[in-house]
Amino acid sequence: MSAAFIAELRRALPEHVLLVEAEDLRPYECDGLAAYKQLPLAVCLPESLEQTRALLRLCRQHHVPVVARGAGTGLSGGALPLAEGVVLSLARFNRILEIDPDNRLARVQPGVRNLAISEAAAPLNLYYAPDPSSQIACSIGGNVAENSGGVHCLKYGLTVHNVLALKVLTMDGELLDIGLAAPDSPGYDLLALMTGSEGLLGIVVEVTVKLLPRPERAQLVLAAFASVEAAGAAVARIIGAGILPAGLEMMDNLSIRAAEDFVHAGYPVDAAAILLCELDGANAEVSEQIMAVRRVLLDAGATEVRSAEDEAQRLKFWAGRKGAFPAVGRISPDYYCMDGTIPRQHLARVLARIGELSTQYDLRVANVFHAGDGNLHPLILFDANREGEQARAEALGADILRLCVEVGGTITGEHGVGVEKLDAACSQFNAAELAQFHAVKAAFDPDGLLNPGKAVPTLHRCAEMGRMHVSGGALPFPELPRF
Amino acid sequence: MSAAFIAELRRALPEHVLLVEAEDLRPYECDGLAAYKQLPLAVCLPESLEQTRALLRLCRQHHVPVVARGAGTGLSGGALPLAEGVVLSLARFNRILEIDPDNRLARVQPGVRNLAISEAAAPLNLYYAPDPSSQIACSIGGNVAENSGGVHCLKYGLTVHNVLALKVLTMDGELLDIGLAAPDSPGYDLLALMTGSEGLLGIVVEVTVKLLPRPERAQLVLAAFASVEAAGAAVARIIGAGILPAGLEMMDNLSIRAAEDFVHAGYPVDAAAILLCELDGANAEVSEQIMAVRRVLLDAGATEVRSAEDEAQRLKFWAGRKGAFPAVGRISPDYYCMDGTIPRQHLARVLARIGELSTQYDLRVANVFHAGDGNLHPLILFDANREGEQARAEALGADILRLCVEVGGTITGEHGVGVEKLDAACSQFNAAELAQFHAVKAAFDPDGLLNPGKAVPTLHRCAEMGRMHVSGGALPFPELPRF
Repeated sequence: MSAAFIAELRRALPEHVLLVEAEDLRPYECDGLAAYKQLPLAVCLPESLEQTRALLRLCRQHHVPVVARGAGTGLSGGALPLAEGVVLSLARFNRILEIDPDNRLARVQPGVRNLAISEAAAPLNLYYAPDPSSQIACSIGGNVAENSGGVHCLKYGLTVHNVLALKVLTMDGELLDIGLAAPDSPGYDLLALMTGSEGLLGIVVEVTVKLLPRPERAQLVLAAFASVEAAGAAVARIIGAGILPAGLEMMDNLSIRAAEDFVHAGYPVDAAAILLCELDGANAEVSEQIMAVRRVLLDAGATEVRSAEDEAQRLKFWAGRKGAFPAVGRISPDYYCMDGTIPRQHLARVLARIGELSTQYDLRVANVFHAGDGNLHPLILFDANREGEQARAEALGADILRLCVEVGGTITGEHGVGVEKLDAACSQFNAAELAQFHAVKAAFDPDGLLNPGKAVPTLHRCAEMGRMHVSGGALPFPELPRF
Repeated sequence: MSAAFIAELRRALPEHVLLVEAEDLRPYECDGLAAYKQLPLAVCLPESLEQTRALLRLCRQHHVPVVARGAGTGLSGGALPLAEGVVLSLARFNRILEIDPDNRLARVQPGVRNLAISEAAAPLNLYYAPDPSSQIACSIGGNVAENSGGVHCLKYGLTVHNVLALKVLTMDGELLDIGLAAPDSPGYDLLALMTGSEGLLGIVVEVTVKLLPRPERAQLVLAAFASVEAAGAAVARIIGAGILPAGLEMMDNLSIRAAEDFVHAGYPVDAAAILLCELDGANAEVSEQIMAVRRVLLDAGATEVRSAEDEAQRLKFWAGRKGAFPAVGRISPDYYCMDGTIPRQHLARVLARIGELSTQYDLRVANVFHAGDGNLHPLILFDANREGEQARAEALGADILRLCVEVGGTITGEHGVGVEKLDAACSQFNAAELAQFHAVKAAFDPDGLLNPGKAVPTLHRCAEMGRMHVSGGALPFPELPRF
């Protein structure tokens, strides 16, 4: 049956858009979550809407699942192939169709790299705000699928807040125009629904994004603290003081040392934690805010507060933060990058609890946070070659995610659920909510051919785990201390 | 059958939450779109989730449609009763449950008035940003249903950008927790989908909204122009200069005169159009922006530019704008308030075309715009007692909405589709898009009992009108001049 399907694909599509040999399929066997690998039946790299439609038509006829893929930088396995499925790579949809300075928008194909949009808009003094760490490589289509964030999302929002319109192919091959350059739109708001839907509802074939004027000035303040709790409390005080930083990042001692060894950013290596607080906007406004932030940081017990002396130092300070993941990769054979979100006011308490869990599991945890957003990236250090360590790392990770849910947060901040967090998602939703999600999925893809098995766990899976979230009732995880 | 149903309602619910006599039903026969009136079978004003669930259960059993209603200030007939249906008033869900300054949010019941949230948050120097003109009366639940806007939405966004979480009862009586105080959330994003869904997907029983710090200073600039086109062009230049006003409103001569007669705001009554441009933020920032805006306005040909001299004058300038609708109501027996949105750069051209249509239909049009958003509110003046005038007003309105779609805009800015714009919605969507909307509706409400017949036209209706939007093909309205 798969041979017949592939023969039909070959007839319908030009040879150079189709990969079917194992050696050609290998680069597609995983995305950024390399712990999971699977060769697909075939990879298709269509160059046009017509070819994409032809592919979807054949997949529909043969009931073959379709996994859409951008640049493959995703961290939750959203683009993990299925053995009996086709990977639909949008890599050749890579044209910037329009930069419109009057309406401050860019219309691009999904395979365009995140950073390429800002580069194309730079001559007009505009840029695209969401900046995932992978922005050199990741594609805007993937950003839409995962609702990606970045260090500047505190002020400028996630992908969902910066996308104006999408063109989406349904599994039926119908083209939907979703959203508009105009602020509101009649009908149901499918734009946010589609954003972050991890390839389960449709194939994004065009994206219109907001462009913002480059701020007149950006200034970065680095503050050192004698405890992670103090740094966490300072975050709440900055926001509470009515200051909205462009970015507000936190790193603990392990991350600081790793980053400093790697990038030589000039970080204070004895600090228990540092905050990086960027202010941007008009010149005078930034000056005022810098003064206010320094005051708050010192009041909150910072042992040292430094403003970047020039643009070179500002970029150096950022380089340490943006290089934190690879830096941690240098000090441990393996690490497991978590991604959870909590309400900001619980930052200090959650950090303390992560410390306890780290001791309990006997595994080091390096903490790198989008602190202003309450988006945590604990990096769990382990050695896969040591018996049982990977399982222990995963168990610790699961405990951290449950902790996030317990304090009113979520099991993902910006990396998506993919295959990685299906179990964790069981702690987030009750049966009615999961049933509603599956009904929405069926409204777009009744045969369940688009990226099946990802993003939303089945009710069965959650029931089997005994992990279903109990709304308003008893805590689902009595083993964890209640805050 | 309806007698049996009412008897069951009486058994299930306390007497004082149920209205069934015609005289008691009368106040609910219409919402703010008073041209459409219909008495419902009954009105229910539940005081608790349990009573609401009981009502929904009986409606489900008897297949009786349910129309949710907030304060009844909606302008598109979204809360228009159905003869065989129940109106579910959320008026008694009127408690502010929590004001949380640390996380800058308010958790409220849906019947709480929009302005009451800001009043409750004022002692903490916080406020809720979206400010529909009806904000004294309209409820936050209604705001969510219609995705309401207001004069400050240019900078602060629509309701959808200011809602963090919802609790929603499905027609099945299941309670869904949608969205979170945390920035991102796994699963499909149902928050935006629910916002603006006009009561067709579920019953909102709790709303968590963002609160913002009150700006240190707000200043208003009034500019007069010798033509509406010049005022429209000035709007584009302000935005193009990288200035993001808190509000940017436009009124034409007819509106100016009407408002001045009514409110004595001190408007220049000989101006063809005025712009009201509010800047808010930190003191120094506002001063800089005021200077920049004045420069742009004078460059754009303003015949006069005045800054409000004090807070009293600022409020007076706004009072004229906010009272523009009732002011127009004083100079015409009837008026028809339109609500469409266009990409900003077409403002001047669309205004010119509305002027031509006004002449062609021999009906005066007063133009009041959220100009910065491209959200138009043309008020079509007519006398319902004069033979054929109402029909002519409606035809003119429909032409204006088609014009909005034609230039890439939408048939609604902030008032919703309701019953008023079902035909107009046909020009917005193609068959695949409408089919997708109906599939989404069915995923939430398979029996179609929630506010049926509103917001999304049937494919049949659009096909009958011959008005279906043709994507990427020929213009659907060849009779209108092409820009």
